[in-house]
Amino acid sequence: MEKQAILHKTKSNYAYAYDAQTLHFRLRSKRDDLLSVTLLIDHEDGWLPNEKGVWMWQKKQVTMRKEFSTELFDYWFAEIQPHNLKARYGFLLDDGQTQVLFVERGFFSPDDEFIQNDINSYFSFPYIHENDLFVAPAWVKETVWYQIFPERFANGDVTNDPQKTHAWSSASSAVLGEFEFYGGDLRGIINKLPYLADLGISGIYLTPIFKSPTSHKYDTEDYFEIDPHFGTKEDLRELVDKAHQLGIRIMLDAVFNHIGWTSYQFKDAQTKGKTSKYYDWFYFEEDSYLNFSYHMPKLNTSHPEVIDYLIQVASYWILEADIDGWRLDVANEVDHQFWKKFRAAVKSIKPDVYICGELWHDSQAWLNGDQFDGVMNYPLAKPIQEWLATERLNGYEFLEQFVHAYTRYPKNQNLGMMTLLDSHDTPRIITSAQNDYRKVDMCFALLATTPGSICFYYGSEIYLQGEDDPDNRRCMNWEVTPTSNIAKLTQLRKNYPTVGYAGEYDFLSVTDYTIIFKKCSIDETIYFVFHTKGRETVDVPKEMQGQTFVELIHSQLIPLSEQLQLDEYSYLILKKS
Amino acid sequence: MEKQAILHKTKSNYAYAYDAQTLHFRLRSKRDDLLSVTLLIDHEDGWLPNEKGVWMWQKKQVTMRKEFSTELFDYWFAEIQPHNLKARYGFLLDDGQTQVLFVERGFFSPDDEFIQNDINSYFSFPYIHENDLFVAPAWVKETVWYQIFPERFANGDVTNDPQKTHAWSSASSAVLGEFEFYGGDLRGIINKLPYLADLGISGIYLTPIFKSPTSHKYDTEDYFEIDPHFGTKEDLRELVDKAHQLGIRIMLDAVFNHIGWTSYQFKDAQTKGKTSKYYDWFYFEEDSYLNFSYHMPKLNTSHPEVIDYLIQVASYWILEADIDGWRLDVANEVDHQFWKKFRAAVKSIKPDVYICGELWHDSQAWLNGDQFDGVMNYPLAKPIQEWLATERLNGYEFLEQFVHAYTRYPKNQNLGMMTLLDSHDTPRIITSAQNDYRKVDMCFALLATTPGSICFYYGSEIYLQGEDDPDNRRCMNWEVTPTSNIAKLTQLRKNYPTVGYAGEYDFLSVTDYTIIFKKCSIDETIYFVFHTKGRETVDVPKEMQGQTFVELIHSQLIPLSEQLQLDEYSYLILKKS
Repeated sequence: MEKQAILHKTKSNYAYAYDAQTLHFRLRSKRDDLLSVTLLIDHEDGWLPNEKGVWMWQKKQVTMRKEFSTELFDYWFAEIQPHNLKARYGFLLDDGQTQVLFVERGFFSPDDEFIQNDINSYFSFPYIHENDLFVAPAWVKETVWYQIFPERFANGDVTNDPQKTHAWSSASSAVLGEFEFYGGDLRGIINKLPYLADLGISGIYLTPIFKSPTSHKYDTEDYFEIDPHFGTKEDLRELVDKAHQLGIRIMLDAVFNHIGWTSYQFKDAQTKGKTSKYYDWFYFEEDSYLNFSYHMPKLNTSHPEVIDYLIQVASYWILEADIDGWRLDVANEVDHQFWKKFRAAVKSIKPDVYICGELWHDSQAWLNGDQFDGVMNYPLAKPIQEWLATERLNGYEFLEQFVHAYTRYPKNQNLGMMTLLDSHDTPRIITSAQNDYRKVDMCFALLATTPGSICFYYGSEIYLQGEDDPDNRRCMNWEVTPTSNIAKLTQLRKNYPTVGYAGEYDFLSVTDYTIIFKKCSIDETIYFVFHTKGRETVDVPKEMQGQTFVELIHSQLIPLSEQLQLDEYSYLILKKS
Repeated sequence: MEKQAILHKTKSNYAYAYDAQTLHFRLRSKRDDLLSVTLLIDHEDGWLPNEKGVWMWQKKQVTMRKEFSTELFDYWFAEIQPHNLKARYGFLLDDGQTQVLFVERGFFSPDDEFIQNDINSYFSFPYIHENDLFVAPAWVKETVWYQIFPERFANGDVTNDPQKTHAWSSASSAVLGEFEFYGGDLRGIINKLPYLADLGISGIYLTPIFKSPTSHKYDTEDYFEIDPHFGTKEDLRELVDKAHQLGIRIMLDAVFNHIGWTSYQFKDAQTKGKTSKYYDWFYFEEDSYLNFSYHMPKLNTSHPEVIDYLIQVASYWILEADIDGWRLDVANEVDHQFWKKFRAAVKSIKPDVYICGELWHDSQAWLNGDQFDGVMNYPLAKPIQEWLATERLNGYEFLEQFVHAYTRYPKNQNLGMMTLLDSHDTPRIITSAQNDYRKVDMCFALLATTPGSICFYYGSEIYLQGEDDPDNRRCMNWEVTPTSNIAKLTQLRKNYPTVGYAGEYDFLSVTDYTIIFKKCSIDETIYFVFHTKGRETVDVPKEMQGQTFVELIHSQLIPLSEQLQLDEYSYLILKKS
């Protein structure tokens, strides 16, 4: 038995409270090393004497199911509603030759009577407290976001255009620098709300809209003013109201790690130096200051006045415009203490407001219920992009990395995520896919199966192209009609929650170029087939043979025998007819 | 390479901020699998073009040292002061045949140019924020605690004795049940302060002293009153004052998970039912209530009035008697939210008050800087007890479990621990050691090498015996003189901080019965030899050969050649002369 590969940790993604009654347990082992894993957990009977009269700690035995099997690992899972809300537990590992008892203190023989009764050597999930639970707003898991870079989405009011506004153009050669303007504004978004509703969008995430000299506006000049080129506070209120009427929520961008160099606070501090009341809002050192990047001085978010100020900002726009979420820019470079105060403040005003951190890495430290509801889950989408769009990965590598990212978080945390393939910070997915629409549609379809909310970058529906910043911020092209599968996928997620938040992944077959999996909920099972290179005949998993399915994207009937012919870069979403 | 055994996680005991400038990195691998591990971390140069003109992300290479090697694992360590307080990092693993790049997303070839530059695939420690640091009070790491069960330590005032007080007796046959009394009190402790100072004790942890009907007083009747059989508030103030004059700190027991059944709150709730203003302080269900154990109803610590009440209690005794610490009973069954509020409240009154949770398991979730300063670290002492006292473990198994428990926490968290071999909740160590004084002295000596504070249960210095509760609560025997090595060990920790908090472990040789290690600080190196069964001649590690050492417990000179004869159950603490 490869003991060194056995992984479990209490109060982590490997053992967590899923809800007020339920604990989830996971264990990771080397692939194909173990035949079975049995969870041993307190029995209601407590302690009973054995035949020799020795009092023995009674344990229930719960067989764990192998949820995933990747090239490197097997992942085991069990769900329990413990009596008394407590769990002292261990694992019985069986590789067919030996049985090993794995507890917090290490590996022992299952026959070791001392360890059998030494409850403190076991793992412990001491108590499920409802107020310690991680809970994201319930609406998030059903949401399909559409990210808008307002300066480039739609120009609805030419009277507020900047002085040197360029002619609207989605061409790659367009001038896109941070001081180049095209006139996009809030009125433009308001006008396009019916268009977005038709796409099935249920949330809009706007990159910054507060006053700032640049096109991206990540260098805030005044957090309490809408940028005049974008519109007015009335426009924002109208946008939110009209969006709400269409069932669309609005999330703004909270850029609190740094401020803009044209803000009065920074100008005052820079001009007056230590005599400025804002001097301590920043990190000045000799003749320079700590900055996030050019023109973006870092804010000292442990300074009480800065904390008060930023929390006022966050509260103001909820109260003023009834926004539904804050996306937190560079959230991981701001201290945890600040985010805890931030959460307490905004949730006290609007309990179901969504808090979504910009984090590109393992974000567990921000997801313990006292900071964020979710993060921009790039790591879950990256294997999708690299298997289906750039083809850096084969199917096995995809599965390894996808499962790694999926199991990195508790299942209830996964429901709070915003998973996305691209954004204003990355090349666009169509460009990564060498402009192959088929690949992009596959990426969108696989993205749509992830739990939690998903996010499409504006223009994805028309395959708008773009390399890295600033080319990924081209003007939306309103002269073409959306041809991607996004509208179908949003409808599918609505009609079949199993496709998204309600379904559990079960991978049935994996090769370099083809992956077949199902997602199951209590009510239904939906099958997914993804195939990349070459027209190919593949084996159909046994459980699907001899049945007829409805392909849910094209509403075709597909009877399945032992084999199935697949087109190059094609996917199927199948439900038993 | 055994990739499945490679373990690292950001923002955990494997990557943490040690202080405001310093990050620590650990990686675990299968024993003897890797020849070297190199940490790759952002270089000040940022991005530079290579010879082909491709811009490459520049990384520093830092060789990690193998800190521990156990039967199962090698543990690698590196300490870095990153420029800009940020770290994006990965690991280069070399097993002599292949090199593998290990990053957050998985395992890659080090020649993979895409991954080399894909900073988001790496691990990230995004920013060291001083206000997010884990910081225990500086005095804790130097403290040697003495745990007193006041009813059984010393009777200093017979006028406050309970009605049916038994004659003082340390015999095993004594009646020790929870309603049996011997008259121990605060005056008794005050009288014995010089005795404790002579032992080198620098902290006293008192089990509960508030009003309660039992001898152990874990069923509190009134948190605002000293139990009348123990004395008065004036007595407590005098105890704290006189202790402080001797450099001894005082920690009380906060029993906040449950209250006593004789408390007015519980009686009111039980009598009046739902009409009682205290009804919601508890968890009543039909005709019963959720209790911790017999006569101890669990408190609803998410109820605002309960929170206020308990925090008032905690604040009151700091303000009233200037106590130095709170030991938190059954801390893991109380919600995290409560402890966060508790910490904020008590630290605002006395910033260097010590908060020590009773937790017997992995306690990482309580040690992120916003709850506890430390826990009763039974898991670190258990391998000591089981190798040296009960002899369940051999030397290899000891090392496996000791290193497992030691590396479970960041090094700065280890400094906040209270590590202990026994208490009112366990058999006494002398009894576990079948009354063999030699074994117990070895346990004490090995305990004394652990970082953070250590704790001796009252009577340990005279080898007071006792099986599990209630036999472990026998009266202190004042007719014998301490003969254990405790006084020498406390002196040693004072004279040579390397023995305790300042030294890093380095294990030089391990067999079933003998372990030789050194502890090193910048200033000094001290060697330790522990030997169990049989008089035996053992090999001396090369670096110790040909040198003369002072044995610090007996102040003997010991010249070492290639071999050394060791007595059964003996230990040596050696410093180069």
